[in-house]
Amino acid sequence: MAIITLTTDFGEKDHFVGAIKGSIYSELEDVKIVDISHSVSPFNVLEAAYIIQNAYKSFPKGSIHLIGIDSELNPDNKHIAVNLDEHYFICANNGIMSMICNEIAAEKIVEINIHDKIETNFPVLDVFVKVACHIARGGTLEVVGKVISNIKPIKNMIPFINDEQSQIIGNVIYIDNYGNVVTNIRRKFFEQIQKGRSFEISARSYKFKDIYKKYSDIVNFEVPEEDRQDEGRGLVVFNSSDYLEIAIYKSDLATVGSASSLMGLQMRDTVTINFAK
Amino acid sequence: MAIITLTTDFGEKDHFVGAIKGSIYSELEDVKIVDISHSVSPFNVLEAAYIIQNAYKSFPKGSIHLIGIDSELNPDNKHIAVNLDEHYFICANNGIMSMICNEIAAEKIVEINIHDKIETNFPVLDVFVKVACHIARGGTLEVVGKVISNIKPIKNMIPFINDEQSQIIGNVIYIDNYGNVVTNIRRKFFEQIQKGRSFEISARSYKFKDIYKKYSDIVNFEVPEEDRQDEGRGLVVFNSSDYLEIAIYKSDLATVGSASSLMGLQMRDTVTINFAK
Amino acid sequence: MAIITLTTDFGEKDHFVGAIKGSIYSELEDVKIVDISHSVSPFNVLEAAYIIQNAYKSFPKGSIHLIGIDSELNPDNKHIAVNLDEHYFICANNGIMSMICNEIAAEKIVEINIHDKIETNFPVLDVFVKVACHIARGGTLEVVGKVISNIKPIKNMIPFINDEQSQIIGNVIYIDNYGNVVTNIRRKFFEQIQKGRSFEISARSYKFKDIYKKYSDIVNFEVPEEDRQDEGRGLVVFNSSDYLEIAIYKSDLATVGSASSLMGLQMRDTVTINFAK
Repeated sequence: MAIITLTTDFGEKDHFVGAIKGSIYSELEDVKIVDISHSVSPFNVLEAAYIIQNAYKSFPKGSIHLIGIDSELNPDNKHIAVNLDEHYFICANNGIMSMICNEIAAEKIVEINIHDKIETNFPVLDVFVKVACHIARGGTLEVVGKVISNIKPIKNMIPFINDEQSQIIGNVIYIDNYGNVVTNIRRKFFEQIQKGRSFEISARSYKFKDIYKKYSDIVNFEVPEEDRQDEGRGLVVFNSSDYLEIAIYKSDLATVGSASSLMGLQMRDTVTINFAK
Repeated sequence: MAIITLTTDFGEKDHFVGAIKGSIYSELEDVKIVDISHSVSPFNVLEAAYIIQNAYKSFPKGSIHLIGIDSELNPDNKHIAVNLDEHYFICANNGIMSMICNEIAAEKIVEINIHDKIETNFPVLDVFVKVACHIARGGTLEVVGKVISNIKPIKNMIPFINDEQSQIIGNVIYIDNYGNVVTNIRRKFFEQIQKGRSFEISARSYKFKDIYKKYSDIVNFEVPEEDRQDEGRGLVVFNSSDYLEIAIYKSDLATVGSASSLMGLQMRDTVTINFAK
Repeated sequence: MAIITLTTDFGEKDHFVGAIKGSIYSELEDVKIVDISHSVSPFNVLEAAYIIQNAYKSFPKGSIHLIGIDSELNPDNKHIAVNLDEHYFICANNGIMSMICNEIAAEKIVEINIHDKIETNFPVLDVFVKVACHIARGGTLEVVGKVISNIKPIKNMIPFINDEQSQIIGNVIYIDNYGNVVTNIRRKFFEQIQKGRSFEISARSYKFKDIYKKYSDIVNFEVPEEDRQDEGRGLVVFNSSDYLEIAIYKSDLATVGSASSLMGLQMRDTVTINFAK
């Protein structure tokens, strides 16, 4: 049975997502529709790229991922369908796919050209759903578009390294539900530059000298539970997607605050790592 | 396989929606349950009417739409099941269905009367689910209720037109995820009154003389991308549901603001169109 | 077909929930995945316990409930799988299950011990999903863990009664989507102590002498609709889960306010009932 996932900035309230699901079920009887996220910040291509990159790999090969972010068709914003890592992606050519494509080469990319038959201001419903159902029925990408070789890049994706390789300057690319701050510095990249050297991570006026394996590694479990004061302490981890992340232990935006709110870290802010000589 | 959709004001957090889904799966093995929205503002019948009207049409004929908004049974608020446009709707008789029924005549309306067997303060779980499953199994509406011919109307649904047909006064009936402001002025209605005349749309102190086909029509794509200043500009479009909508190009409530927040437009506010002589 | 439900504090935005669903579909072709809630407040065990207790009973026997709240494995926080009331629960041993287990004795509890084969900082994905799919395929709990007999208790679950049985002191354990304030005082418990006596309920400076059966029982339907002023009035009901709840009739946090916001009632605040002699 085909799987079609949905990642959009349509929010949890409006009728848009419901209409899309209804439209898919009207075309296909046997299909699983899975919500990945509808709470991407409006038009935020970087957030969407991070979410879809870290979600798609868990799905079975052959899954079809429909991404509805900033997808209005216009001279600067074409629609594409991508076959990569045995998954299919349908989205606007606005940078969303470049984070994944930078890691794994696309098997095939087509610029969708079925629009001359469809005039619409809701292209996710009227175009993306048609393409997704076409693929789900076993159709090829060439039928819905013409093959292209390049896609639009995304900004703030790759950290800066100085010539002496003594410094990495990264950026905040995502802030998660716990207010944890995710940077574009990946574990493998970090270790290649680090070469075992000690280091100091700076984010605004905050400094860190350790990267933990998991959040609760900050806790000394030999101290009795009632005497511990770890909740609310800052720490750095490689998160479950292997991105360097600045976190607060057991953070909650609504109560104790989070790394984002307490340290004042926002999307695209810089995070610097200096390595010892 | 039957499709049952859910539209409620139960929110994303509480156990209510989970309980409803569990209850449906306990009655029916083969059913698709589809969330349309659980983030309708509490008791907001107008919002719910707009959402269900614009979502239901995408679903296959025969779909069953369960709407849980202000559904506590009391002397003023009875429960109804409606067959219309080959779809089924189950909800309170509180105005929700009048937006759809105003456009398409109902095939059949029954006032649900299975309550004497069920005492409950969670009628969506204990009554609506039972009715939905009854319909999904092929049961008729007459078994669960007695036929009625009229339903409660909804306020603020139809715009005012003056006698000279030189002015339409509409209302804001929905504010979407992007903060775009939807009025009750529909494209067909507008064009019938307009008869090709030029016009000026007023909302508070803001004036508009054009209605775009899509949001990015405000952009001059001949200007180089780095020189454009279109993000944050106000515009009017007929949205994908053919309602007149006041929007901000690439709005985001959390950052640049939206039509609702920047222009101070709220639910039920008036939007006026004056036509040239 | 197996049913796996999800209750987490992962929120509606991040990739975590999508990754979990993808992972389940990668292991099982024939399964229904049902979201109960992903909006539990971060690390809030009490909220999660209330939600899962009130949702699980509606699901068919044999359903598998995966609960991802505060689930990082560490010396103080082990993982368990519980068979109870012919349902299965997979979660951390952090108090979540004690609300349900206090009411219905567990058939079997195992402490999950498949971790020596899996190193992870996303245990819900890497461990809980594996256990859930194992159970869905008909596997036994003993294969994934060792039987234990006790689980961690939860705080603020049981109200205090004085020796004369003239006073109950309860706590707020949940605040719902309408801002209604749910206490840990259950109907059956209340009636056993009350023994027909009249009573006064106090929450901060607010006093109530009646407990309604449903919210609209506060309305006098003989008064014409346009003259009623019931919206915004406070009342006490036993809610649909039979917990004593302080509510505002037709509350809306964003507009008229709610019991929580208007009366200043927060999680863990006390609610006192004094019985007449």
